[in-house]
Amino acid sequence: MELLKERIRRDGKVKDGHIIKVDGFLNHQIDINLLEEIGKEFRRIFGGENITKIITIEASGIAVACLTAMYFNVPVVFAKKSESKNIDGEVYRSKVTSYTRGHDYTVILEKKYLTSKDRILIIDDILATGKAQRGLLDISKQAGAYVAGIGVVIEKGFQGGGDQLRAEGYNVQSLAIIDSMENNTVLFRE
Amino acid sequence: MELLKERIRRDGKVKDGHIIKVDGFLNHQIDINLLEEIGKEFRRIFGGENITKIITIEASGIAVACLTAMYFNVPVVFAKKSESKNIDGEVYRSKVTSYTRGHDYTVILEKKYLTSKDRILIIDDILATGKAQRGLLDISKQAGAYVAGIGVVIEKGFQGGGDQLRAEGYNVQSLAIIDSMENNTVLFRE
Repeated sequence: MELLKERIRRDGKVKDGHIIKVDGFLNHQIDINLLEEIGKEFRRIFGGENITKIITIEASGIAVACLTAMYFNVPVVFAKKSESKNIDGEVYRSKVTSYTRGHDYTVILEKKYLTSKDRILIIDDILATGKAQRGLLDISKQAGAYVAGIGVVIEKGFQGGGDQLRAEGYNVQSLAIIDSMENNTVLFRE
Repeated sequence: MELLKERIRRDGKVKDGHIIKVDGFLNHQIDINLLEEIGKEFRRIFGGENITKIITIEASGIAVACLTAMYFNVPVVFAKKSESKNIDGEVYRSKVTSYTRGHDYTVILEKKYLTSKDRILIIDDILATGKAQRGLLDISKQAGAYVAGIGVVIEKGFQGGGDQLRAEGYNVQSLAIIDSMENNTVLFRE
């Protein structure tokens, strides 16, 4: 998606530790117009898949998931990262190791919001090692839901998580894949 | 907002401890069509305020903030609840005591995303004691930003946080104010 790549080139900042900061438009401050275009693009890619629900993880996946769901006219369900008094039903759980946070956490999703009747699209802002996405895949498997696709805004291709998922047969579609960030220069996969 | 009140009556569940569960449509599973109507309603209420940014806190405020920002054509900035390798600039910090989580947390927001030039609308899904909103007000004060309004989807009026903020002069507008949840019956303020 050229509009997105241009934005990453212009406003993205490479940090040591293979981190790309895109928090000026994607995951701290959010450019809603860009997200609308991203939502339309995911609709173009996955529009034929009869998606019934869009699944993501709090927090930064929620914005992209919502603006995408608008073009699919389906609900979003976001997995939560911590217990709360608001969670009381039966839940699916899966453990995730976070690269950016440096510790493990458990994601939970109430069972009544994901069932074997669902054909889901997993949406997230960043795919690096794929750990967060695997947490959602694990929960989808527990629910018996069909994973029609995984839509990612920015994939850090050099960390390999996306290609591993593709090798396992998942339909992973990333709007921008970064293959290298050497010398502060972002190189995208063609 | 009648559509919202009807939905709360139909799908909301009262739990002990003054909790109203609305996670079937607002803060776990999200009804995007309802959120579009909510966004339009906030635009109707605050449309004359020359808002430059919409501010919220992760996680459940993000969906409402994004669907509202669409109708204002301004960016969203969401305060984060934890440190991350992705945060590196100068930040504003404020401590918040959570009613539903039962512990304190610090919210952080990078300074470059909120300045004294901003006229902000604070958006959140739930207002109870007002602690989360006060965290955002504290950060706004640190930034010198003008708070044009506070828009809330559901206010638990009986917990008093909204009325305290109004008494201090803030323009708090809640789309549904619950004044009582005795005997599992939700009574709205007229």
